[in-house]
Amino acid sequence: MTSKKYVYSYSEGGRQSVDLLGGKGAGLAEMSNIGLNVPPGITITTEACRDYLKNSKFPDGMMDQTLSGLKSIERTTGKKFGDRKNPLLVSVRSGAPVSMPGMMDTILNVGLNGETVEGIASLTGNRRFALDSYRRLLQMFGSVVLGIPKDRFEEKLEEIKSSNGFRSDLDLGVEHLSRLIEAYHRVYSDSGFSFPEDPHDQLTMAIEAVFRSWNSDRAKAYREINRIPDHMGTAVNIVSMIFGNMGNDSATGVAFTRDANTGEKRLFAEYLPNAQGEDVVAGIRTPKHIESLRTEIPDAYEDLVKSAEILENHYKDMMDIEFTIEKGKFYLLQVRKGKRSARASIRIAVDLAKEGKISRKEAVMMVTPETLRATLYPIVKLTGNEKIVAEGLAASPGAASGRLCFSSQRAIELSKKEKAIILIRPETTADDVRGMSVSVGFLTQKGGMTSHAAVVARAMGKPAVVGAEEIRVDVNAGTVSMRGEVLHEGDTVTVDGTTGRVYRGSIPTEEASMQGEGEVLLSWADSFRKLGIRANANTPAEAILARKNGAEGIGLARTERMFLGDERIRIMRSMIMSESTEERKRYLNQLLPMQVSDFTEFFSTMEGFPVIIRLLDPPLHEFLPDKEETLRKLFNLQKNPGDGRELKETERLLSVIRSLEEFNPMLGFRGCRLGILYPEIYEMQVRAIISAAKAVKRTGKSILPEIMIPLVGHENELKLLRERLEKVIHDEMGSDPVEYKFGTMIEIPRACVTADSIARHSDFFSFGTNDLTQMTFGYSRDDAEGKFLAKYVELGILKMDPFETVDETGVGELMRMAVRKGKKSNPGIEIGICGEQGGDPETITFCHSIGLDYVSSSPYRIPVAKLAAARAAISSRKRGQTAG
Amino acid sequence: MTSKKYVYSYSEGGRQSVDLLGGKGAGLAEMSNIGLNVPPGITITTEACRDYLKNSKFPDGMMDQTLSGLKSIERTTGKKFGDRKNPLLVSVRSGAPVSMPGMMDTILNVGLNGETVEGIASLTGNRRFALDSYRRLLQMFGSVVLGIPKDRFEEKLEEIKSSNGFRSDLDLGVEHLSRLIEAYHRVYSDSGFSFPEDPHDQLTMAIEAVFRSWNSDRAKAYREINRIPDHMGTAVNIVSMIFGNMGNDSATGVAFTRDANTGEKRLFAEYLPNAQGEDVVAGIRTPKHIESLRTEIPDAYEDLVKSAEILENHYKDMMDIEFTIEKGKFYLLQVRKGKRSARASIRIAVDLAKEGKISRKEAVMMVTPETLRATLYPIVKLTGNEKIVAEGLAASPGAASGRLCFSSQRAIELSKKEKAIILIRPETTADDVRGMSVSVGFLTQKGGMTSHAAVVARAMGKPAVVGAEEIRVDVNAGTVSMRGEVLHEGDTVTVDGTTGRVYRGSIPTEEASMQGEGEVLLSWADSFRKLGIRANANTPAEAILARKNGAEGIGLARTERMFLGDERIRIMRSMIMSESTEERKRYLNQLLPMQVSDFTEFFSTMEGFPVIIRLLDPPLHEFLPDKEETLRKLFNLQKNPGDGRELKETERLLSVIRSLEEFNPMLGFRGCRLGILYPEIYEMQVRAIISAAKAVKRTGKSILPEIMIPLVGHENELKLLRERLEKVIHDEMGSDPVEYKFGTMIEIPRACVTADSIARHSDFFSFGTNDLTQMTFGYSRDDAEGKFLAKYVELGILKMDPFETVDETGVGELMRMAVRKGKKSNPGIEIGICGEQGGDPETITFCHSIGLDYVSSSPYRIPVAKLAAARAAISSRKRGQTAG
Repeated sequence: MTSKKYVYSYSEGGRQSVDLLGGKGAGLAEMSNIGLNVPPGITITTEACRDYLKNSKFPDGMMDQTLSGLKSIERTTGKKFGDRKNPLLVSVRSGAPVSMPGMMDTILNVGLNGETVEGIASLTGNRRFALDSYRRLLQMFGSVVLGIPKDRFEEKLEEIKSSNGFRSDLDLGVEHLSRLIEAYHRVYSDSGFSFPEDPHDQLTMAIEAVFRSWNSDRAKAYREINRIPDHMGTAVNIVSMIFGNMGNDSATGVAFTRDANTGEKRLFAEYLPNAQGEDVVAGIRTPKHIESLRTEIPDAYEDLVKSAEILENHYKDMMDIEFTIEKGKFYLLQVRKGKRSARASIRIAVDLAKEGKISRKEAVMMVTPETLRATLYPIVKLTGNEKIVAEGLAASPGAASGRLCFSSQRAIELSKKEKAIILIRPETTADDVRGMSVSVGFLTQKGGMTSHAAVVARAMGKPAVVGAEEIRVDVNAGTVSMRGEVLHEGDTVTVDGTTGRVYRGSIPTEEASMQGEGEVLLSWADSFRKLGIRANANTPAEAILARKNGAEGIGLARTERMFLGDERIRIMRSMIMSESTEERKRYLNQLLPMQVSDFTEFFSTMEGFPVIIRLLDPPLHEFLPDKEETLRKLFNLQKNPGDGRELKETERLLSVIRSLEEFNPMLGFRGCRLGILYPEIYEMQVRAIISAAKAVKRTGKSILPEIMIPLVGHENELKLLRERLEKVIHDEMGSDPVEYKFGTMIEIPRACVTADSIARHSDFFSFGTNDLTQMTFGYSRDDAEGKFLAKYVELGILKMDPFETVDETGVGELMRMAVRKGKKSNPGIEIGICGEQGGDPETITFCHSIGLDYVSSSPYRIPVAKLAAARAAISSRKRGQTAG
Repeated sequence: MTSKKYVYSYSEGGRQSVDLLGGKGAGLAEMSNIGLNVPPGITITTEACRDYLKNSKFPDGMMDQTLSGLKSIERTTGKKFGDRKNPLLVSVRSGAPVSMPGMMDTILNVGLNGETVEGIASLTGNRRFALDSYRRLLQMFGSVVLGIPKDRFEEKLEEIKSSNGFRSDLDLGVEHLSRLIEAYHRVYSDSGFSFPEDPHDQLTMAIEAVFRSWNSDRAKAYREINRIPDHMGTAVNIVSMIFGNMGNDSATGVAFTRDANTGEKRLFAEYLPNAQGEDVVAGIRTPKHIESLRTEIPDAYEDLVKSAEILENHYKDMMDIEFTIEKGKFYLLQVRKGKRSARASIRIAVDLAKEGKISRKEAVMMVTPETLRATLYPIVKLTGNEKIVAEGLAASPGAASGRLCFSSQRAIELSKKEKAIILIRPETTADDVRGMSVSVGFLTQKGGMTSHAAVVARAMGKPAVVGAEEIRVDVNAGTVSMRGEVLHEGDTVTVDGTTGRVYRGSIPTEEASMQGEGEVLLSWADSFRKLGIRANANTPAEAILARKNGAEGIGLARTERMFLGDERIRIMRSMIMSESTEERKRYLNQLLPMQVSDFTEFFSTMEGFPVIIRLLDPPLHEFLPDKEETLRKLFNLQKNPGDGRELKETERLLSVIRSLEEFNPMLGFRGCRLGILYPEIYEMQVRAIISAAKAVKRTGKSILPEIMIPLVGHENELKLLRERLEKVIHDEMGSDPVEYKFGTMIEIPRACVTADSIARHSDFFSFGTNDLTQMTFGYSRDDAEGKFLAKYVELGILKMDPFETVDETGVGELMRMAVRKGKKSNPGIEIGICGEQGGDPETITFCHSIGLDYVSSSPYRIPVAKLAAARAAISSRKRGQTAG
């Protein structure tokens, strides 16, 4: 019976064998196969590791195969493992399928012992080098393989150094090293061990140690954090030792085939002359610029340049290379894809495609949406000395520094002389919008990812940290206490909405802009994607930005945001406090021309593209002042009533607040429920839409308004509203018809379940995944994010925050159902998504897969959405081809 | 070409032809066919009506068939339509498939004119009778057929009466009637009409008028209110006139074959001698007891008794009969199922089965659950003079009178001397439970159908009217203003929780009890039903009641209600305000023995039956005092701080209230989310359950505890809790194992969608349809019921309140999915429902149809639930047979 194959020579492996041979092993094999110079070696498979970990012993045949592989290394190098004259030394290195840098073990110089060390000494003519290599083996083997605490070796080293007054290991001479070797042997015996003099024992034990290191605590923790599966196991590479520390014609270094920071096409490398790889990692000596190598060891330099080019062309990507030069001879020790900055990532992908090395599709697949996104917001440039004074929810990305201001009123005043204001509030309300518009960033003590501050910040594209529960804002005193410090108006902080951190003082930020290569990449993405990309825009200004960023329409214009200006909210409040339908209509008539003007601007801006306008959605109490403040005001007025007029007004206000108060406003009297019970509100809005559309049409521009009803859960809601509002529409059109669509949000579970009936009254569906997620999970986002959601992710109950990425199993299943049922009863129906998740790449991939027509995201996320849509289309086409 | 058949003779119809011939026509045909004496007649079908309404003309052949039918009436009666000597007179009566009493038109005496009236006069020898019949035809025909306003005829009648000083129509002599007939003819000509002298014209026009009356405004409104479909149409019965007003040997009357009030087996009838049917309806004369008929017209009496018996035996039900006696000859004019009181309904069904006239299954199908329910609550006995002082939500059925009391404290004091207390509060909280327990009924100004007051009232089985927004309760002043009146403590009111009305003063109520026949019926129901019936019980007292009412287990014991006593809520609040896990555990340890004692009582009471205990569900802030009151207290303490201790405590309390405050508590930090983040709470509860189970088991009683986790939306929640809690369970069991089940509520849409995964960790599912409905619809019940739900039902958007009866299309679809997926991955899973809807008959039918194992309802609803379950089983078996 022949045993399984557990050991691979280079010629038997290659880049495709990553799972079996690990990244390092596959890279060595690939390099060897394409004719590059790598030190001879073999790779034991991950399967052997898995087998070992399962049965606590090497699988049958593995060691035999290893020894026969070792023989072939001996043949190639002409050296012999354990030979006292010309001994072969090997490194035993871990190498997992997924990179886990520094997490697992490696033992160098295996094969050295009291005898072979002498062989090395005489062969190299460098006794110090030989002894130093030997003591390193003793130290590494002792701690890694036998588990002797490192300290015990370090102590001995320190003893000798201090007794001689040495400061560096390099000061140790032959004598000292000999004494150290003896001391190390004593450490072994004191710990109950003896160093295995037989190189084969060393090898066997080293392999076993590397296998075991897969399950070390730190490796397991790393995998958990990085979501790497536990079952893979590590390969073991046994490679003949190459020494970069054999004199001035030796060296070791790393190289990136392009600039990892900018993406520029130039070799980006550093090296240390007369050094070993671990010296580079240890950072004891400062590496030299690669240009020196050109003059120092010109042949090796040429080899490096040539190898880099070959590898990049071969892998069709920017590569990260480790190399060593032993006595003038150039060896490649490792190759892998090079890590790069977000900016570099885009430039490299575009350049590679332009150079013809990859296709445009491959370029698009090379840049993740997260990478693109990272290039779009200002980021803080940290030195590490910054003081974090608070942490909260990262509600709106980007960073900004400015002076603290505790009220919108003050912010507006200060904005006349002060440019950069950070508005800090316990929480923001409709009253704060003007103050927010003059500020550069926001910080709140309360509220979640959909709190007023968070939503407005994202809409304004300004950084915000919200729900920083640890701080205490005292608006009256104009102070905030943050981690023991009390800050006042005018104190400077930096708000990093990407991380949720707040820093004391001003920290420089790097401004973002879509660069040349980014635009090129996006134009390629546009040619591949199937999904339309629209933007959510609540004001004409946002519509302009959306258009600039390449939106193909507005997927959601929330009309309620239009009622927030000083004058408008006054009218809105009067409307809400109206005591009769007539009074209410009077105020609505005041709002009508304002809405007409909003919509006219919208339609003009979005010429040629559809604009979905959602009729009033939030509960009316959102337009009223805060209850607690009103209560406080009332209590004070009761003590000092003055002429009683203000008291009376406040009492009336409080009674309206109370009557509109709800136990669970999210599930209360809002959306189409309002529209149905107060017909005049939606009627005004629809009239404004048609009137604006007619006005724009008269200017010769084409426009497609889509009227969207929020919060529909029953077909009869939509049916009734459509009948009622189409009367108004036709009345307003008169003899001048305009094209329009009439449709609904799908944001209530029942709407998904009954989508077939609802589709019969609807020209389009737009998924509101925020509310849909809230109701499908039974989570109030504002409450959940502060109270238990983070803990749920931490405990592994949820893989991720379902408000950021659609929950495919639950919410997604309902969406699938809605699409299926909706299209069945109304095949021509247009279906999109306008929740915030519409800008999330994973969600976009999902939306592509269930056959949506478009996604709508924040104007700032449009580039990301386009890229994600293109990648989804390319991946599914690929899968399609494979399947076919 | 022969035309369709539109006209039926009696021998061609029968009881099965109700859709085609209407209720009246089918009854006449059936009676005739079984040999009872009915006046000769024919019936024009509902199809003819539909045809007419569609095309605005009679269908081809209909009038020919009518005339040939008329001929057969002529042959039978020996009279001739339009004959001046021996004229046939007919009534033209509407008769729809579903009874719509008084909604559609009927014309009597068709066939009379200036000539035939003389024939009648001489034939009957009663000229006054003939003229009176003629003027009635003129009046009826004019108003019904031609649409001449009734007033114009009434005016003329009044003129003649007043000019002669008459008070009654009966005072009119031959002379006056002749003058009246002339006056009526003038009314016709003044209105632009002339009375059609030709009897055939009369007939044609009368038929058309009856057809048209199907679509009269009042008929349409009636159908809308009573949910009768619009498409059915009415049949038209043309029946030869029988006159009960031809002397003392003539009479007219109505009879029920059994006592419609008590159900007793005795003829229950009244009659008017020498009168026409319309006189009975008009109520001008007081009818005589049927015993008089036995002596007055003994033959007719015998005929009536015999006919009643025949009809009841034939229809196998209590029947409502109309009869007329013309010159001693007995005629049956109509038969239909008799309306009866709820009590009578049960007695009749049981008696009929005992008499062998129907099967037990038929008896069960004869009593609706609503009927049974109506016999179970006390009902007010109204005289019509009662003063309604308020109306609110009918939150808990039944009625009670008592003296108003404005605080629980006072209620407890007063209860020592005063038995009947009605507790009135703006709204109730946990603090009011003791006060509620000494009161007989509740009235609140705020809150919906799931407000604290409503839920506690239903659990206590006491009447409650909640959310009576129109009243103003001033607790400090101890007054309530109700429709202009100000009431004080001690004033007496009656609360009717069945209708939501509150009356001034004490109104007698009829006490309910399950009567002998009810128990018999239920024992039959038990033998047919498939669904198990459990009860929701929150206290041991309720468990005892549940057992008494026949529950086969507890489907839901909410543990939170157990923390509401004075002492317990104090500990609970301390637990919530704990600043460390240790402190929290200390308080939980104080609660542990109390929980053990609760559960021990539960398990003892429910010996042999399963008891599902739901671990803590509501958000913690529900156990804390009201925020507004605390704020007010704080403001006052800030003015008068005293030694500052109370101020400090109140500040701390407020800060805890604030930290637990939520935007949407229903979707917030509650249920298993609490249990996961504060493991010690559920651990204490589970320990108490197992400890109690062991104690009861030691007494030799068998018991099956089922531990239920609330608000699960993701399988990982259940998986984690099960792993965590089963450790505690096994620890607590030690060497003394007890059998238990571990399962979950299904009350979140996501739980339905992912029921297959969840079922892998669950021994049972229990649908929480209240929360499931809230989340599936996106309705907060407390908000929706006060704000828009009633309007939605009124507008026809919803057919009914989805919180009372499960919404089969939406919520039901998710339930179906959950059952299907749950059983697929765990075929042995036990599935029930414990929402309040579990006691709703329609919901029970649905639960049977989707294959649930049991329903759990309020202890008070168990009889209703049993009946509903039996009816569902019988119906579906029947359908099964038909299908087979």
